[in-house]
Amino acid sequence: MKNIAILGSTGTIGRNTLDVVRRLNQSFRVVALAAGSNRRLLEEQVRTFRPAIVSLERKEDAVEFRNRIGNVPVRVTWGLEGAEEIGSFRDADVVVSAITGISGLRPTLAAVRAGKTVALANKESMVVAGPILRQEARLNRSRIIPVDSEHSGVFQCLAKERRRDVRTVTLTASGGPFFRTPKNKLNTRTVAEALAHPRWKMGKKVTIDSATLMNKGLELIEARWLFNLDPDQLRILIHPQSIVHALVEMRDGSVLGQLSPTDMRIPIQYALTYPERKEAVLPPLDLGEVRALEFFPVDETRYPLIRLAYQALAEGDSLPVALNAANEAAVAAFLAGKIGFTEIHGTIRKVMDGHRKTKVHALGDILEVDRETKEQMFQTLQQRY
Amino acid sequence: MKNIAILGSTGTIGRNTLDVVRRLNQSFRVVALAAGSNRRLLEEQVRTFRPAIVSLERKEDAVEFRNRIGNVPVRVTWGLEGAEEIGSFRDADVVVSAITGISGLRPTLAAVRAGKTVALANKESMVVAGPILRQEARLNRSRIIPVDSEHSGVFQCLAKERRRDVRTVTLTASGGPFFRTPKNKLNTRTVAEALAHPRWKMGKKVTIDSATLMNKGLELIEARWLFNLDPDQLRILIHPQSIVHALVEMRDGSVLGQLSPTDMRIPIQYALTYPERKEAVLPPLDLGEVRALEFFPVDETRYPLIRLAYQALAEGDSLPVALNAANEAAVAAFLAGKIGFTEIHGTIRKVMDGHRKTKVHALGDILEVDRETKEQMFQTLQQRY
Repeated sequence: MKNIAILGSTGTIGRNTLDVVRRLNQSFRVVALAAGSNRRLLEEQVRTFRPAIVSLERKEDAVEFRNRIGNVPVRVTWGLEGAEEIGSFRDADVVVSAITGISGLRPTLAAVRAGKTVALANKESMVVAGPILRQEARLNRSRIIPVDSEHSGVFQCLAKERRRDVRTVTLTASGGPFFRTPKNKLNTRTVAEALAHPRWKMGKKVTIDSATLMNKGLELIEARWLFNLDPDQLRILIHPQSIVHALVEMRDGSVLGQLSPTDMRIPIQYALTYPERKEAVLPPLDLGEVRALEFFPVDETRYPLIRLAYQALAEGDSLPVALNAANEAAVAAFLAGKIGFTEIHGTIRKVMDGHRKTKVHALGDILEVDRETKEQMFQTLQQRY
Repeated sequence: MKNIAILGSTGTIGRNTLDVVRRLNQSFRVVALAAGSNRRLLEEQVRTFRPAIVSLERKEDAVEFRNRIGNVPVRVTWGLEGAEEIGSFRDADVVVSAITGISGLRPTLAAVRAGKTVALANKESMVVAGPILRQEARLNRSRIIPVDSEHSGVFQCLAKERRRDVRTVTLTASGGPFFRTPKNKLNTRTVAEALAHPRWKMGKKVTIDSATLMNKGLELIEARWLFNLDPDQLRILIHPQSIVHALVEMRDGSVLGQLSPTDMRIPIQYALTYPERKEAVLPPLDLGEVRALEFFPVDETRYPLIRLAYQALAEGDSLPVALNAANEAAVAAFLAGKIGFTEIHGTIRKVMDGHRKTKVHALGDILEVDRETKEQMFQTLQQRY
C-alpha cells in the first residue's frame, strides 16, 4: 500500500491518476490533494478518496470549500504554501506533480526536498530547474519518475542499460492538429481548432504546445535533465499515430522502443507502481489492427518554435527559463484570443531575441527570469494591440 | 578479450560472426572453428584468424585440408566428434552455435555442458531439445544468448523485467518473398524465387523456412524454451520491413520493442559482447527515412504450416522434434526440385498426422524421433515419385 499525494488533482493528469487509484484500490491510498479552483470536483474527490489534507489556489475558495465539505474530517489549506505542504506531506510516499506551468515548480521542489518519490507530469519544473531538481533529488534521496508518455517510454527503455551505451534518444510527437494543414492556412487557425488534438486528451496549455511542437521542445529539455543526456543526443520524430512514444538507440545500432495505446493512465500507473507493474484494465495494443506506424522528420518551417527550443536546449543557463516563460505568456494570449496562432512564434521569438542570458543558481534566479520575461511579453503584446 | 569458437564458421552466421570479430579485433580472439566442407573458405579463415583447432564434416576433407594448410600451426579434426570438440574447446569463452538443422544439436549440447556462453543461432537445437538444454545450462552454469534477431530483441526487452509482468511476446516475420503473391500462384513458385528473400541474406534452409513461415513457427518454440514462456503467451505479426524484431507486452499494457537495421551482425555482436555493448559500424536506423512500419495478422491460409507449428508448440513432447525433422526433409526435397512449393505443407502434414507422440527424456529419444520421421518422410516422397 502506497500513500499518494497529488499536486493538481482536478486537472487532466490528476483526474487520470485518481482513476488509476480507483482501479488499483488495493495498492494505493490518497492522502493529500492540491487543486486549483474547481471546488465542485475537489469535493467529489474528497468524499470519494478521503484525503487527510487538501489545498486550493486561493484563500477565499478554501474558506468556501471548508464550509461546503461540512463535517468531513479533512484539513483545508491554500496558496503556494498550501501546495508545498501537500508536496511534502509527511504520510505521502509518492507525490504526483501535475500542476501546469512554472506554478508547479515550488511544490515539486518541496516534494523532492522531502525525499518523496515524485511522479513528474509538470515538465516545466524540469525545463526551468533541471540541474537544481537533480541535485536536490540526489541530496534528499528522492526518486523522480516521469509521467509524460514519452519520458516514461525512455525511462522504461533505459532502465537497465548502461548510460554510456546510449547513442541517441528520440521522443515522438503526434504533430498535433495542424500536421497536415497547408502552411499558408495556419495563420487563420482558431483556438477551438488548436484545442482539437487528434490523439491525446490533455489540458489546454499542453494541447496548444502540441500544435506548435513547443511541447516537444520542452520535453527535449526535460529529457536532458531527467536522463542526464547531452543536448546533441536528443531527437524528435513526428509519429501521427502516437503509439511509439520513445526510441533509445544504443551504441551497437540496436534500438529499444516503448509503445502503448494512447492513454495517459498507462504511464501514470507505471509511475505509481514502479518498480512493479500491475494489471492494466485497458484493452491491449493490437498492431495488426493499427496496421501502420508512420514517422516523419520535423519540418521546421511548419514548427518554427522548435528552433528556439533547440537553442535553449543547447545553450542552457537562463534560456530555457525565458523560453518557458515567453511560451506560457504567448499561449495564454492565444487562448484569450489576443494573438493568432502563427503569432505565437513571432512574439516568443521577439522576447527571446531581447533576452540576456544569465547563470541560474537557485530558485530565486529562476523566478526572477520568469517574472522579467513575462513582463517583457506583456509589454510586447501591449505594443501590438 | 573473449575467446570465440564458431560452430558453422563457413555458413552465413559464421561469416558474419567473423566480420564482427574483425571489426572488434581488440575484444575477441578466434580459437576454434567447425566448418562443413568449404575448405577454400576455411583456409582463408584459418590464415586470417589463426585458431588453435578446426574441424570439418568429413574425414577426407580434413585430411586434404591438413595438407592444404601446410605448416600453419592448427589442429585439424573432423566429424560430429570434431564439432563437439570445437563446442567444448577449453580455451573458448563464447561458442557461436550456427550449424543448421538438428546437426547442430550435439555440438551445442557439448558447449552447454562445458559451461560455455553459447551464442545460439541454431534454433533447431532449442526446438527439439529445449527442456534438456535449459536443464543442462542450469546445471553447468552455461548462459544461452540468442542470435536470431527476433530472440535477441526479446532478450533485450526482457532483460530487466520481472517475468511475471510479461503478458505476451510477439515475434515479427517479414512474410518472406511470397507475402503478396496471389495464393493461387503459390504452387508454381520456383526454388530461385523462394530463395530471393526480400530483407535478410541467410542460408538456404532458413530462407525457405521464411517463405513458408515455418521459420517463425520454429522460432515460437525456440522462444518458449529460451524465455520460459507459456505457449499461449507467444504471438506472430507479419512486418514486411523487418525493422521491429520483437515486441514484449507487459501486464500494464506497456509494450517494449526492439528495432534495428536488417543486418545479422547487430544481434551477433550483441550476443558476443553481452552484457556490454560495443560501437556499431553500420549506419544508424533512420525511421524518418523508412517512413512506415506495417503490421499484419498472419493469414493461415497463405501460411498453413504455421498451424502445425502452433500445434507442436502447444502439445510439446516429441511433436516439435517430428515437425522439425519433417520440415528439414521437405525443405531438402523442395531445394532438390523433388516437390513443389505448396507441397511442402502437404508432405509435412501427412507425416505429422501419422506421428505417434512420445515423451522425450534424453538426447537419444530426440535422435530416434528425428531418424524415424525422416525415414517416414523419405517413404512418403518415394510413394509420390
